Amino acid sequence: MIRTAPSCLARAQDLLRPELRRWIDRLSPEVRRVVAYHFGFTDAYGRATADDGGKALRPLLVFLSAEAAGGSARRAVPGAVAVELVHNFSLLHDDVMDHDEQRRHRPTAWTVFGVAPTIAAGDALANLAHEVLLAEPTPERIEADAALTTATARMIAGQCDDLAFQSRPEVSIDDCLRMMSDKTGALFSCAASLGAIQVGGREDQGQALRRFGLHLGLAFQAADDILGIWGEPDVTGKPAANDLRERKKTLPVVAALASKTPVGWTLRQLLSNGHLNVQAVTRAAHLVDEAGGREWTLKEAERHARLARQALELTPVNEDARRQLIEVAEFVTARDF
Amino acid sequence: MIRTAPSCLARAQDLLRPELRRWIDRLSPEVRRVVAYHFGFTDAYGRATADDGGKALRPLLVFLSAEAAGGSARRAVPGAVAVELVHNFSLLHDDVMDHDEQRRHRPTAWTVFGVAPTIAAGDALANLAHEVLLAEPTPERIEADAALTTATARMIAGQCDDLAFQSRPEVSIDDCLRMMSDKTGALFSCAASLGAIQVGGREDQGQALRRFGLHLGLAFQAADDILGIWGEPDVTGKPAANDLRERKKTLPVVAALASKTPVGWTLRQLLSNGHLNVQAVTRAAHLVDEAGGREWTLKEAERHARLARQALELTPVNEDARRQLIEVAEFVTARDF
Repeated sequence: MIRTAPSCLARAQDLLRPELRRWIDRLSPEVRRVVAYHFGFTDAYGRATADDGGKALRPLLVFLSAEAAGGSARRAVPGAVAVELVHNFSLLHDDVMDHDEQRRHRPTAWTVFGVAPTIAAGDALANLAHEVLLAEPTPERIEADAALTTATARMIAGQCDDLAFQSRPEVSIDDCLRMMSDKTGALFSCAASLGAIQVGGREDQGQALRRFGLHLGLAFQAADDILGIWGEPDVTGKPAANDLRERKKTLPVVAALASKTPVGWTLRQLLSNGHLNVQAVTRAAHLVDEAGGREWTLKEAERHARLARQALELTPVNEDARRQLIEVAEFVTARDF
Repeated sequence: MIRTAPSCLARAQDLLRPELRRWIDRLSPEVRRVVAYHFGFTDAYGRATADDGGKALRPLLVFLSAEAAGGSARRAVPGAVAVELVHNFSLLHDDVMDHDEQRRHRPTAWTVFGVAPTIAAGDALANLAHEVLLAEPTPERIEADAALTTATARMIAGQCDDLAFQSRPEVSIDDCLRMMSDKTGALFSCAASLGAIQVGGREDQGQALRRFGLHLGLAFQAADDILGIWGEPDVTGKPAANDLRERKKTLPVVAALASKTPVGWTLRQLLSNGHLNVQAVTRAAHLVDEAGGREWTLKEAERHARLARQALELTPVNEDARRQLIEVAEFVTARDF
């Protein structure tokens, strides 16, 4: 999905992976086979693969936030594992809910194992996140668990709104941004401050990092929404124009509909039809672009990446960590559109 | 489902309901409409009903365990709410996984709102349970949250095994009992000790109560398995012989298959057929009975109810609470077979 990943991503993966695998190995066999496949550790037949288990962007935020608050990334490993588990619980369930058949260039778990084991596997990961944090119930870890629980609640509410928007004719840009703040922003915001919580960072640092994470999440989601319509399948690992086929009211679509241009009206009529065939999807992607939805969303992604950077300007944090966090913010908006 | 409920159930409902509703009211609107319907607080159109939201058996165990350990039931309300949320998260997801269309005499949530919002609603309840306990992170509540998380992990693993058993030709009685211990026993065991944890009960009390809860859960599930095949739909609130239609390897079926009787072999052949029509389901119920599966399961339910009572005999607990716990154990095996 990403061409030039910051070098710190590799370090995050190295810190994360042994602990993540250790916890996943503790799951019961029937749950584990779905989870191991989903993470890419095994193929559909349960055979080990050379896959790395995803890019670990959220764990990276956890590690950098620990360092930003003057602590060590190593102390933030439980939080990083927990965030990655919550993120992957949401991927497992979202793929069922959205009928997505491809992720990371592979068939999604539910297409391989069925809906029921995939629901249970997602449930198990959501629960495992708490087990990881509560394994040593220090005050910092309990605070981290409470923050993760709050973020998870918002993530679920956002996913529910996202689903509801599909059949709602009028969705405003504000509705859409609020949904994105919940669905994506909350977990990013949590990840970007969870390391600081675990190393006992100052409250002003936590606040700045949460703000950074929220805007980063919005920038990420806006960029993702562009890829969800115009991304190349061999880059995104998902089918072309997937979001349009699922009638998702993503930011480019909502912005195009809100444009009040004749093209916007044509788009509205097209989307009001029951089923969208391949030609209709291609035409819709074209209309969203023509009505300015793509351009507006790209600008919105850049705006939030800028707000993310600004969030770190006034609060004293470790300079090296700040530089890397800003590199991450540049990277999420510089994805291959 | 139950003819003569112990009077303490009504008190548990009174203690539970205001707090349960207060927390459910905090859910986002799209999540809440599914949850409120599922609990029976509203009908499919969102209109308030006079329904009581279920029998609150697990919360009752939480309250009685607080009193058994010499504390007040009121202090155990957060744990009781959390257990009820976890239980209902599992009902929402299990109904999707098992394709169950009726529960508590009503259409299940997924048949009314669709699979996707129901998955999200279940996710929200599982998460809300942690929010409830972590709202005031006292050492007792954190211990309670850790215990609930461990029990939830076992519950999910048990549900996964239950699903896997459907397509596995050989399931031993031991496999089945182990699955039941996870799927049902773990949360009962947790509920029956969670109140004691919250009021700071002694470890020997906690241990006795956990053991009580485990055997009570096994007795409950064995009784439920009998109702799942031979229960009257207007009593159970579910379609007749539902478990057989879903090819569940419940205890009566596994015991019948393990009986090594000619009837058991006939049953095995019948169940090996792809689809079971209405006649085949009726015949299978008959064969399970004839092979002794019903009788054996009833005895097993009674045996575990006895073991539950015995678990409370040697450890000093509050006498009034003990009496009521034993009343509950009698009640779960005296359901209307």
